[in-house]
Amino acid sequence: PVNADRIAEDIEALAGITEPDHPWTRRAFSPLFLKGRTYIEARMKAAGLTTRIDAAGNLIGRRAGAKSGLGTILVGSHSDTVPDGGRFDGIAGTIAALEVARSLKDRDIELDHDLEIVDFLAEEVSIFGVSCIGSRGMTGQIPEAWLSRVSGDRTLSQGIAEVGGDPSVLLAQKRPDLAGFLELHIEQGPVLEAENKDIGIVTAIAGITRIEITVEGRADHAGTTPMDRRADALVAASQLVLDIRSRAAEQAKTPGHFAATVGEFRIEPNAANVVPSKVVLLIDGRAEIRSDMEEFLAWIDAAVQRIAEAYGVTIKSPVRVSDNFPTPGAPVLLETLERACDTVGAKHRRMASGAGHDTAWIAKVAPAAMIFVPCKEGRSHCAEEWAENDDIAMGAAVLFEAVRDMDRN
Amino acid sequence: PVNADRIAEDIEALAGITEPDHPWTRRAFSPLFLKGRTYIEARMKAAGLTTRIDAAGNLIGRRAGAKSGLGTILVGSHSDTVPDGGRFDGIAGTIAALEVARSLKDRDIELDHDLEIVDFLAEEVSIFGVSCIGSRGMTGQIPEAWLSRVSGDRTLSQGIAEVGGDPSVLLAQKRPDLAGFLELHIEQGPVLEAENKDIGIVTAIAGITRIEITVEGRADHAGTTPMDRRADALVAASQLVLDIRSRAAEQAKTPGHFAATVGEFRIEPNAANVVPSKVVLLIDGRAEIRSDMEEFLAWIDAAVQRIAEAYGVTIKSPVRVSDNFPTPGAPVLLETLERACDTVGAKHRRMASGAGHDTAWIAKVAPAAMIFVPCKEGRSHCAEEWAENDDIAMGAAVLFEAVRDMDRN
Ligand SMILES: NC(=O)NCCC(=O)O
Ligand SMILES: NC(=O)NCCC(=O)O
Repeated sequence: PVNADRIAEDIEALAGITEPDHPWTRRAFSPLFLKGRTYIEARMKAAGLTTRIDAAGNLIGRRAGAKSGLGTILVGSHSDTVPDGGRFDGIAGTIAALEVARSLKDRDIELDHDLEIVDFLAEEVSIFGVSCIGSRGMTGQIPEAWLSRVSGDRTLSQGIAEVGGDPSVLLAQKRPDLAGFLELHIEQGPVLEAENKDIGIVTAIAGITRIEITVEGRADHAGTTPMDRRADALVAASQLVLDIRSRAAEQAKTPGHFAATVGEFRIEPNAANVVPSKVVLLIDGRAEIRSDMEEFLAWIDAAVQRIAEAYGVTIKSPVRVSDNFPTPGAPVLLETLERACDTVGAKHRRMASGAGHDTAWIAKVAPAAMIFVPCKEGRSHCAEEWAENDDIAMGAAVLFEAVRDMDRN
Repeated sequence: PVNADRIAEDIEALAGITEPDHPWTRRAFSPLFLKGRTYIEARMKAAGLTTRIDAAGNLIGRRAGAKSGLGTILVGSHSDTVPDGGRFDGIAGTIAALEVARSLKDRDIELDHDLEIVDFLAEEVSIFGVSCIGSRGMTGQIPEAWLSRVSGDRTLSQGIAEVGGDPSVLLAQKRPDLAGFLELHIEQGPVLEAENKDIGIVTAIAGITRIEITVEGRADHAGTTPMDRRADALVAASQLVLDIRSRAAEQAKTPGHFAATVGEFRIEPNAANVVPSKVVLLIDGRAEIRSDMEEFLAWIDAAVQRIAEAYGVTIKSPVRVSDNFPTPGAPVLLETLERACDTVGAKHRRMASGAGHDTAWIAKVAPAAMIFVPCKEGRSHCAEEWAENDDIAMGAAVLFEAVRDMDRN
């Protein structure tokens, strides 16, 4: 029910709007980002949508429904990218949503519900150091303090105003009219490709917990200090990294997505001939089931005590830098999406999202769910990120059928 | 036979010549360094020494011997410090050497040999990124390429000229007149203190080998990539750090000093939600016995292959960034030093130096040896570095007796 060529054309056109030396970069709040939006807005208009920028700086294309009072079906994703990558991350979902509106128009299908296609502002961690600005902002979930965050010579508040938002009413945003939200996204993982599935129906968006750990040893001369008289912070931290990996691999074998990664790791004094005195590391934990994260956190507390004793170092209490709970997809929408997959003949499976998404924020105020399409080798947030256009078109067809199903029910 | 108060007074005076906010910093080539030397030179003159700066920028105080043709007995150390520390590292040995000259003068003792007290230029890794400039330079061991190394707006060549050296004749320096060299230094390790010894007689200065290892994994999304599909460079590197530690601890148990430390460690991309794709780490290995280092290097080659396979990462061949052989102390001088210890009643033991020293460079052209005095808790290269003045005075007395012994033999 959708036109794959049109999808390819739009994704190609947006890929052309990139920092020339850093494909495929189109950072939120940049002139390139606005250029991308100008393109998307024109395509929204060509699809018969009425466009606006909401208070949170989201670009929205609207099509009124036949009946009033049923509320709005919202579909979309984001068009900003991380630095140096992301040809499909967010873009695929934004264009697939647009294609739903176009297909409805092509077929002269009128919905009872109002329909809105959204390009959320700044889903990726932005120059202001925070992410999901548009989806949080649309639903009144931006902490007030964020508005005065600074990047270069402007505040986030100014940045939102520059893209056309209205910071003065931002904190009071609510969308009580939302009847439901759907997002298509590339999987950003290898599972669908490996299992030869077309669509992942996202049961839950994993909670993300970030834990900072500081290991303190003693800076001694690397040449003269006997091996058995050292308090080497790097050695202790290495044991912690390995133990976290083993523990996470164990927890990943039980039902529910689980992952834990040490992604940031910095040593002091980082000098060739000095025994490392300090390591600060950051654990990124993801759990589909909250109790898994609770178990992991308790395990971490015990592990750092055990390692501190074994290696003669001091490890301060782990600091929970951030801690978000998992967000389940609305059960009714998961069923809708499954029916839609069956209608278009898409091979599907249920799966969790290990990555955070705008859907998690919209889900706080309305029934929301998302689907994944496969991406090559699970690579994402890099120049090599790739999704086959036929897979995206299949996903757009699922969205199309699901929106019609939501409209009827 | 020495005056402990004079030693304390001089060390105290030099401690006063420090960057005020970074005790006890007196970096080679800085105005403070020259101020320190002005003090030392005045004290050399007061001790009846004739002072000069040699081609390599070493400050030398000379006292002619009674007989000509016997050559020069050289005693000394260095007065420069690392950033943020080193009240005694080098300074203790420079002042102890000066005290030997003073005591000879006080007692009207004339030596047959010429005697020179030396303050070597830039023993510590300097702003030009290289160390032991004075001891290498005095003996024609500075690689020509070093002279054009740059720091700020000057080359090493200009830096040496500014302290009074003569770069135009530097590469041709030789000291065929050297009859022997002695250096006193703080141990920079905990052994003498722990064993309640006064003096360590250094059997050998360990060879220092630096090995750079690059671990390459794959940057994947930390949220979405299943635990069993990762090539995590940090996990593999952590295993390597732990294995190096275990191996070095084993090798340290066999005769001969051995230590290995990972002191530099840097991960990429170092982002919270990305599986680390790369770790570059530097191993600092120290061996008193060369074959121990050869064994360690062979073990490293095997270890990286094993770890690369086990963790699905790529580890390029370890790069030997630098590789210096151990330098034994001249056996005749070790005996001289032992006799001197017995004469002054110092409790002594033989031990290796895990740290590099100027002595290693002078040993290439003349009989050379060194003694250690205890330092508190083995701490060095930090503001807390401390040595008891009585211990330094005891060491100076050993030097005094040893110089007289060398003069007679
Ligand atoms: N979808 C996505 O990559 N979100 C970024 C936040 C995260 O999951 O680490
Ligand atoms: N003595 C001393 O600390 N030398 C510095 C070079 C080293 O041994 O790491």
